[in-house]
Amino acid sequence: MLAAAESLMREQGLAGAGIHHIVKLSRAPIGSVYHHFPGGKTQYVSEALRMNGEKARALLVAALSAKKPLAQRLRAFFRVAAKSFEEQGACKGCAIGAVTLDLGRRDDALREVCNEIFASWIDAIEPHLPWRSAKRRRDFALAIVTALEGAFVLARAQKSGAPFIAAGEMLAAAGGQR
Amino acid sequence: MLAAAESLMREQGLAGAGIHHIVKLSRAPIGSVYHHFPGGKTQYVSEALRMNGEKARALLVAALSAKKPLAQRLRAFFRVAAKSFEEQGACKGCAIGAVTLDLGRRDDALREVCNEIFASWIDAIEPHLPWRSAKRRRDFALAIVTALEGAFVLARAQKSGAPFIAAGEMLAAAGGQR
Repeated sequence: MLAAAESLMREQGLAGAGIHHIVKLSRAPIGSVYHHFPGGKTQYVSEALRMNGEKARALLVAALSAKKPLAQRLRAFFRVAAKSFEEQGACKGCAIGAVTLDLGRRDDALREVCNEIFASWIDAIEPHLPWRSAKRRRDFALAIVTALEGAFVLARAQKSGAPFIAAGEMLAAAGGQR
Repeated sequence: MLAAAESLMREQGLAGAGIHHIVKLSRAPIGSVYHHFPGGKTQYVSEALRMNGEKARALLVAALSAKKPLAQRLRAFFRVAAKSFEEQGACKGCAIGAVTLDLGRRDDALREVCNEIFASWIDAIEPHLPWRSAKRRRDFALAIVTALEGAFVLARAQKSGAPFIAAGEMLAAAGGQR
């Protein structure tokens, strides 16, 4: 059920994760959704986003902790993201980004979940950046996550991985030859 | 009606622009929606996005055609974006980005509208960039739009304009002292 929610949100955001969509895709009986997720949609959406965020965090750490110059690590990460986006049909965005842009004013619990996931990525990237200043490392880590989320938007509009490549080049240039 | 659709999509993406939401916010009779937009939701969403995209394009051109070094123009544009995001309650994203991340597989007409709007921004920015190579100018223009869209995602999650500032700094650093 969580995998179904994750997949649907990567395509259609928060509206994609309606309980009837989840039941249809996962073939789980509707009663079992309520049994496992007594908190309803907010609960299963939060859990699916956390699961998705954990996978993305691991990918970011694997790419950015490599023993190579920063510019190479950034280019490699965004090249892989471009390839994987295209291999998956060029129609799957970031579930967390998609849900963030769909939040109504009453969805503050979900907004906080999205914010915590993005913060966990920034915390995970920051120690692998080459500057002494913690503020500079944090600002750059935020800019990496920002560029990644923006690349998903442009890539979905263009149906092409090219925006990931451009984002990686931009970050590599901004990070200098470190 | 278009202003209502635009405002709703900036908060809740494509699902926000349901006809009943539009009617409620704009106080237009439901029959007049069908009268003015015989193509239904796809038509009024497309027109509202184009209207929104035109305003954003004008802001981008005004900021990036200024007679100042590129780094200063970029910092100024993103500083204004941060301020305006916070002044509007830190809950309004980019309508085009939000809709792009909500598109189902059958929404290719809307995807093309979003793609055309982003392309119009890139076309409008490109002539104001200081490099001889047209490819370099286009790649950098794409990276500016990518950073802007990503900043809306992170800013909504954080309820803060800080991601716009970080994006502007990153682009200023990548653009060098031109």
